Amino acid sequence: LDEEAIRAAQARLDSLTKPPGSLGKLEAAARQAAGVTGEAMPELSRKAVIVMAGDHGVCEEGVSAFPPEVTAQMVLNFLHGGAAVNVLARHAGADVVCVDVGVNADLSHPRLVARKIRRGTGNIARGPAMSRDEAIAAIRVGCDVVAELAAAGTRVFATGEMGIGNTTPSAAILIALGGLTPEQAVGRGTGIDDARLLHKRGVVERALAVNAVDPRDPLDALAKLGGLEIAGLVGVILGAAAHRALVVVDGFISSAAALVASRLVPACAPYMLASHLSLEQGHGSMLEAIGLSPMIHMDMRLGEGTGAVLAFHFLDAAVRLMGEMATFESAGVSQQ
Amino acid sequence: LDEEAIRAAQARLDSLTKPPGSLGKLEAAARQAAGVTGEAMPELSRKAVIVMAGDHGVCEEGVSAFPPEVTAQMVLNFLHGGAAVNVLARHAGADVVCVDVGVNADLSHPRLVARKIRRGTGNIARGPAMSRDEAIAAIRVGCDVVAELAAAGTRVFATGEMGIGNTTPSAAILIALGGLTPEQAVGRGTGIDDARLLHKRGVVERALAVNAVDPRDPLDALAKLGGLEIAGLVGVILGAAAHRALVVVDGFISSAAALVASRLVPACAPYMLASHLSLEQGHGSMLEAIGLSPMIHMDMRLGEGTGAVLAFHFLDAAVRLMGEMATFESAGVSQQ
Repeated sequence: LDEEAIRAAQARLDSLTKPPGSLGKLEAAARQAAGVTGEAMPELSRKAVIVMAGDHGVCEEGVSAFPPEVTAQMVLNFLHGGAAVNVLARHAGADVVCVDVGVNADLSHPRLVARKIRRGTGNIARGPAMSRDEAIAAIRVGCDVVAELAAAGTRVFATGEMGIGNTTPSAAILIALGGLTPEQAVGRGTGIDDARLLHKRGVVERALAVNAVDPRDPLDALAKLGGLEIAGLVGVILGAAAHRALVVVDGFISSAAALVASRLVPACAPYMLASHLSLEQGHGSMLEAIGLSPMIHMDMRLGEGTGAVLAFHFLDAAVRLMGEMATFESAGVSQQ
Repeated sequence: LDEEAIRAAQARLDSLTKPPGSLGKLEAAARQAAGVTGEAMPELSRKAVIVMAGDHGVCEEGVSAFPPEVTAQMVLNFLHGGAAVNVLARHAGADVVCVDVGVNADLSHPRLVARKIRRGTGNIARGPAMSRDEAIAAIRVGCDVVAELAAAGTRVFATGEMGIGNTTPSAAILIALGGLTPEQAVGRGTGIDDARLLHKRGVVERALAVNAVDPRDPLDALAKLGGLEIAGLVGVILGAAAHRALVVVDGFISSAAALVASRLVPACAPYMLASHLSLEQGHGSMLEAIGLSPMIHMDMRLGEGTGAVLAFHFLDAAVRLMGEMATFESAGVSQQ
């Protein structure tokens, strides 16, 4: 990060009519945005949430409350602007970019970024989700999408995803890389009952037993435990860091991608900003493992990038405070 | 609250393309707004933060990091649009209404609501902050301001305040009405050091010893421990409830007003929405005592209504989700 820009941002923050540090994480976001962009007063107006979509072979084990065809149905909903993330992105002045990186259906739409690597992952309870090469290809999709958007002027990114069943691979990744137990890491996803939760935990345990993951090899965990959309989001995060752009991390599944990215390339961590604390159990531990602290506690558990897009309001707020607040001098206010 | 409007809002929420309940507190806010306004799809576009300003005689005990003249200086800053709350209110599309209910200075400005009850409170370490009649008069100011704004079309209110020294009476109120100890309730305010914190705790203990407050009489606690701006905010909360409007509660000082209001008129509690968890120690316990759960964890400790105004983005988001999201039927998405 650009230390000089951070110092300049801090000096500006301390000149404004408020007790030093009293705006908390808004001030931290202003400093981080300065360090990431190299601009003491960063311009962040063009924002996009990238929604990566993929299907999961593990759905045949009955881990989700929803049938797998909902992934493709929701992709169409994103493209028609009717999903929660579309509404919240409009509200925050952000674009929604939907990417098919692994949906198990033939999809075609003028606004869809069609970069399917394969039609869903393999069933991780029986074998690997994908090959190492496929994981790398999916990461590349995320990098490419960010590169195109950055070239067109996007300055801030948010991670979003759609994939029925994807809390299962996310929990498996958290256990493999974060060292949690299945009891700690496996939660209710879109809303399964106690019996299904126990079953899901067993499925995750089988996935970890079948796929002997090397915990020092984050790419191994990503390929074997999977999620094509999770791999795509790893690429979004790495791409954002490469383009000196902030990337706002959404909930449990996005954070699994953030965990993989931070283990692959630790230098990408300072480019991430946590948005919300999901109701999905294990999310708090996942964020801690990455070193992130969430701003929003809304008990949300929807994914899609909905929590990350809410945090865009706060990033804009931080930038506006830097530019519009009076200084102690200009307002004639006494200091401590 | 209007139970029929709440049921209609819930039915609408459950028809939208998301797992039931997965938008957490956004859904709760939509239900609450429906119940408060009696409209299943409430219209909340006109919003205002009411910044009550008053001075504190207890400042002569040296409890604050800032000199008391900052209260009047900041009122001018609010009126000129340069304070943090002004910037954040513009960002959220809300009006800032600044009320002099007890500033220890002669203030005059076309946009100032001049309703001074007295020039600052008495020093609570030596006697009462104000008389019972003065407390009632200050409450009436808040009610009047809300009534005027509601008549002009404001549908949502936020509480804000300015008053150097006002975490001291707020902590005293929390101890008197919430049953906390001084160790739990007294914090660093705008940023005092360890020595000053110990001193401040002693001042609060003296205030509680000198003013024998009846814990079953919230008006007694308000008058004796004071804060003219806190009394004004009690009026804002009661006024909002009377006008069937939501009122978003800011941080520690605003929550002291909310605690008094909820003890005076328990029926006003369902009209309140907590915004953020302040870094000021004791705020979490204060919100729990009222039965509120904060949405935003930004480590802020500025007051002015800054946290409450940030929450306006989420209220608008809740309303837009209700109006703009596709339903399972309209989008052709399979249900559980």
